[in-house]
Formats: sequence, structure tokens, C-alpha cells
Amino acid sequence: MPIVRVEMFEGRDNETKRELVQALTREMVRVTGCKEASVSIVITDISKDNWGVGGEIARLKYPD
Amino acid sequence: MPIVRVEMFEGRDNETKRELVQALTREMVRVTGCKEASVSIVITDISKDNWGVGGEIARLKYPD
Amino acid sequence: MPIVRVEMFEGRDNETKRELVQALTREMVRVTGCKEASVSIVITDISKDNWGVGGEIARLKYPD
Amino acid sequence: MPIVRVEMFEGRDNETKRELVQALTREMVRVTGCKEASVSIVITDISKDNWGVGGEIARLKYPD
Amino acid sequence: MPIVRVEMFEGRDNETKRELVQALTREMVRVTGCKEASVSIVITDISKDNWGVGGEIARLKYPD
Amino acid sequence: MPIVRVEMFEGRDNETKRELVQALTREMVRVTGCKEASVSIVITDISKDNWGVGGEIARLKYPD
Repeated sequence: MPIVRVEMFEGRDNETKRELVQALTREMVRVTGCKEASVSIVITDISKDNWGVGGEIARLKYPD
Repeated sequence: MPIVRVEMFEGRDNETKRELVQALTREMVRVTGCKEASVSIVITDISKDNWGVGGEIARLKYPD
Repeated sequence: MPIVRVEMFEGRDNETKRELVQALTREMVRVTGCKEASVSIVITDISKDNWGVGGEIARLKYPD
Repeated sequence: MPIVRVEMFEGRDNETKRELVQALTREMVRVTGCKEASVSIVITDISKDNWGVGGEIARLKYPD
Repeated sequence: MPIVRVEMFEGRDNETKRELVQALTREMVRVTGCKEASVSIVITDISKDNWGVGGEIARLKYPD
Repeated sequence: MPIVRVEMFEGRDNETKRELVQALTREMVRVTGCKEASVSIVITDISKDNWGVGGEIARLKYPD
């Protein structure tokens, strides 16, 4: 049942996403006792042009 | 007022999305009694590289 | 895999929510061809004090 | 702490998004008293093929 | 069409939420050129027990 | 920057949520290389009356 949604800057590769799915699922099961098969993880890659922090767009605040 | 958000694997065509908007709106109106004009539906197409189920990335678990 | 999220004014009873889960799931399966067992529906009841439309809070715009 | 998420039709340029981040952050601080540095704004550009209003897809209802 | 979703610590009163709906709607219209009637704002009050920052729960990091 | 949103059945206590915040933050930092201070975690407790799986409301499908 648990749904875990990750929004992060775009640029991570598929291997990193696979590892993230494994790691977050493992910790959800360990800490909450839910079943592994029931965990959904949805990852959204967000452009730095679409993310603002403290009033400033991330593209300027955190240039690559 | 109701907002219905659908997250599903990418790959459905625009005709399917149109039909989905009609069907989900019709059922929202029928079951909840809300006004048709008030229903917003937002569809997000998600890559199988960005979706994990039971600790495994969907790209591997459900190859096309 | 599909996740359908419904945000609507609070006040609907559990029977209505059950019917909504059935209806939206049935239409997701019919229109997109996904498996029934894979459909998750999450309903969020929202207070009219927490919803604004056209610059006005729903509590005032749509009194009960 | 506050997270403000904006979903709007795709097509706005980066300059508009920068101004939106500034304006929404400023108003969050002014009205709620939160700290500017704590405000996150996430913008999602949505295709008119993925947005339904009143049972109709926005591509048809609001052609460009 | 635009949907603006605000997640913030619980505790703000209805008057503040009304003002926030007005202010955010006004800035959405001013900056993006959308129609006022089309703007939906959804506010979610979040308990400090349900919000983590930098690995620490907000209840401890930011006691009232 | 990363925002991790967890939606799970209501009923977990604050101690479990604290541990979840620590564990998910640690794994986000380890796997993606982001800074610990930048990770926000938002937990939403969902009633079994508001969650449907495979067309059935969770209250019936998974009685406590």
C-alpha cells in the first residue's frame, strides 16, 4: 500500500534509480513492517528551471 | 472542485486519454453528485525507469 | 501500476467512496487495459477552508 | 518548510517561471510569516493532451 | 487550469488561508496571464510529526 | 532539494515516523549524493476508508 514519491533534480541515471527503489523499499519494509510487494515508488525528475528555493530558481542558485 | 490525478505508465495515446477523461469525469459526477464542469483530470505519463514495485524497477519487472 | 488520486470536498460517506473506488477502477481497466489488481485509488477529503477557486475560499463561494 | 506546487499548461518560458518563484515565495512569507529560505516551489508543465476539464480534454477545449 | 498546492505546517487560521488564496491567485494571474476563475488552490496542513528536514522530524527540529 | 512523500495507512506512531525520516534521508544521501540538509520528507497517513486496491476499499480488503 505505501506509495513513496521522490522528486529530485533531473540527471540521475537509471542505475541510480534502481538502487534508490531497492533502498527505499527495503527501509519502508524494515521500519513500517509493510510487505515488500505492496510498496510503490514513483520518481519524478525535475528540471532546475522548474524548482525554486528561497525565492530563487535552482538553475541560478545551484548551477551544474 | 474535484481533482482526479492519474499516474500511469507512459505509452497511451491521446485518444485513450480523451476517453479516460470522459469516463472518469462521468463516474465522478454519477457517484459523488459533483458538477461536470467542476471536474479537473490531470494525467501523468511515467517511464518504467521511474516506477518501482516491490523493490524492483518496472522496466525489469514488466518489460514491454 | 496506475495510481488514481481523488481530491474532493469532505463530507462524502464511506459507501460513496467504496462505489467511487469500484467505478474508477472499472473505467481505468476498460479504457487503458491495465489489470484491476494493479490499480490504486487514494481519496483525500479537503475542507472548504482549504480550497480556493478563482481567488475565493470555497467556504464562502460554496456555503453548504 | 512550505512546499508550493504549481501545475499549469506547458509553454511558459524560464523568465516567467523565475518571476513566479519570486512572487509566490514573497507572498508565502508575507501572509504566513514563514522564512524565505524555507520555501520550495515546484513547477510542473502539463500538456493540454494530459488535462481534462468538465469531461473534455484541454487540447480541444482550449486550442492554442 | 493552474492548480497551486500548498503544504505547510498546521496551525494557520482560516483568515490566513483566505488571504493566501487571494494573494497566490492574484500573482498567478499577474505573472502567467491565466484567468482568475481558472485558478484552484489546495492547502494541506501538515503536522510537525509528519515532516522531516535533513533527517530530523520537524517536531524536534522546530519545537513550537 | 529532494522531496520524498510517503503515503501509508494511518496507525504508525511518531517514533516509527522519526525512524522512517532518518532511514529514508540516509538512503537518499547515500544513493543520490544529495546533501542531508536538503532532504524534505512529508508523511501522509491515509485511512483504509480512503484507499482502494484492485477495485476494493482497503477497509474490507485488509481489515485491521
